[in-house]
Amino acid sequence: MAEFDLIELFRSRCARVRADVTLGIGDDAAVVAVPAGCELVVCTDTLVAGVHFPLHTQAADIGWKALAVNLSDLAAMGATPAWATLALTLPDANRAFVEHFASGFAELAEQHALALIGGDTTRGPLTASVTAFGFVPIGMALRRDGARVGDAVLVTGTMGDAAAGLGCVGEQERDTAIVPSAPESARIALRARLDRPQPRIAVGEMLRGRASACIDVSDGLVADLGHIAAASGVGIEIELARVPASEAFRAAVVADRQSTLQLAGGDDYELAFTIAEADVEAALAALRASGLPTTRIGRVVRGSGVLVLDRDGNPMDLPRRGWEHFT
Amino acid sequence: MAEFDLIELFRSRCARVRADVTLGIGDDAAVVAVPAGCELVVCTDTLVAGVHFPLHTQAADIGWKALAVNLSDLAAMGATPAWATLALTLPDANRAFVEHFASGFAELAEQHALALIGGDTTRGPLTASVTAFGFVPIGMALRRDGARVGDAVLVTGTMGDAAAGLGCVGEQERDTAIVPSAPESARIALRARLDRPQPRIAVGEMLRGRASACIDVSDGLVADLGHIAAASGVGIEIELARVPASEAFRAAVVADRQSTLQLAGGDDYELAFTIAEADVEAALAALRASGLPTTRIGRVVRGSGVLVLDRDGNPMDLPRRGWEHFT
Repeated sequence: MAEFDLIELFRSRCARVRADVTLGIGDDAAVVAVPAGCELVVCTDTLVAGVHFPLHTQAADIGWKALAVNLSDLAAMGATPAWATLALTLPDANRAFVEHFASGFAELAEQHALALIGGDTTRGPLTASVTAFGFVPIGMALRRDGARVGDAVLVTGTMGDAAAGLGCVGEQERDTAIVPSAPESARIALRARLDRPQPRIAVGEMLRGRASACIDVSDGLVADLGHIAAASGVGIEIELARVPASEAFRAAVVADRQSTLQLAGGDDYELAFTIAEADVEAALAALRASGLPTTRIGRVVRGSGVLVLDRDGNPMDLPRRGWEHFT
Repeated sequence: MAEFDLIELFRSRCARVRADVTLGIGDDAAVVAVPAGCELVVCTDTLVAGVHFPLHTQAADIGWKALAVNLSDLAAMGATPAWATLALTLPDANRAFVEHFASGFAELAEQHALALIGGDTTRGPLTASVTAFGFVPIGMALRRDGARVGDAVLVTGTMGDAAAGLGCVGEQERDTAIVPSAPESARIALRARLDRPQPRIAVGEMLRGRASACIDVSDGLVADLGHIAAASGVGIEIELARVPASEAFRAAVVADRQSTLQLAGGDDYELAFTIAEADVEAALAALRASGLPTTRIGRVVRGSGVLVLDRDGNPMDLPRRGWEHFT
């Protein structure tokens, strides 16, 4: 199977007619146009087999997730997705694998009218590196460095599900964090959170002009709030009791492991953001319309770092920092 | 060594203040602005260790080449480079390797005032995937599909050097294409062509509004001209005797292997382009000023595919198609 068949396969599945794409897949490079009044938002995230997803993950889920983790970064900036490029490295030219990968990628791309505009396929250990592009009105990108003392801290969705989902994966089924009798339905729900993260694009768009800082929770809640704290020159204090957990999570995770997975588990791809106290109610009302629960979990304080208060209001000894690929 | 030290290392070496970069490395994504009147040109190319460069290639050369192959794609579009993102996968956190990689990348980036605006570092087999961004005035991008019957076919520089350079690499020194007594200076020159390709940015810019089609020679001369022929719906005829060779190439490559390396060797990163007969002289004069020799090697004809005439004017049996990563 030649590289050119692969390119054609991706073109037929993942390209898309958009007025802002002058030249898509098939030349030395793509030619695109950014709308007047907008800035371009660009991010790159790579998934390596066995590092960022379990070996034997379904190809369609890998395709979905490779795009999703990037769209999550765009969401954290308040950007509207437009295009992506894909650098896919494959150990062999397995057509069925590539078709399923492309179908998972395409399924998410279609939800956001995103066009694949280029890429590269190479031979080597399975790696998918996506660069995603989106637009924000000039000056409206959400950043990490705008949190102010007194702001509220909120998160979308629930925390810890993906880490619990990882505990439910085949070979790791004896993971000590998972209740042996955990219902199959909970395992499936948690695994779906790991394999098919939902980038919170609509929430990010809604937070433009409202949130003072925003980040996606990919490294773990405390680690990612730590990035906001460091970039903004503030401290963040959150209450463990307020950190939202899903029903599946409560059913499947051993009680005394729940806080670790919620605070340090990576891969949830929810948004964590800060917002001025005076704007919280209006923002929550706007977000309620999105159907995605959003929860206030703490506040921005003077100082530095992240402090978590346990259910008795005492500062917790924090688990190790979140997901780091080089420690 | 944490991922965040790597990010800081790249930021300190490869970021750059540009008025069109609102937000560079360090947030969930970069925020940039495309100048009014320009389209954005985007390409992605990945280098895998042992596939796209020999194992034991110097880290600085890998860094240079990872960017160079992408800038070559921008050159083929007539684009002016602006930004890049880097997805780097490393087997271990070797600081010296990363510093040298960054220095090679930065050396080329500086020549084009290019800013690294983001990226990702992950653990896994050594792979460098760069997405590069450039600008062209609206509607001026060079494409593969504009060659017309009667156009002249030209190439910059010399052909076959990188393939000969690969034959000079350590373990492969007994490569049968290389003359055993080849002078060390020739080996060094050829190896430099393999390891430090020079993207022909200035030539690409000069060809805007002049060339009818353009491509960079990465897969091999015949294969890449074949891409122009297929995209343009024409045939291309070239004369072997006109295909330019460097002195080092002539000195180091066994006589009866020269045509194969020149026609099918990949990785030269020169530009091959077509241009209306009436415009050839003016273009050659303009290109002469660039200091890079440009050679007319053939013409666009009716039909399809690429025909090579040997030194007696007879059609050659062509070697297998160029560099394909999946055959």
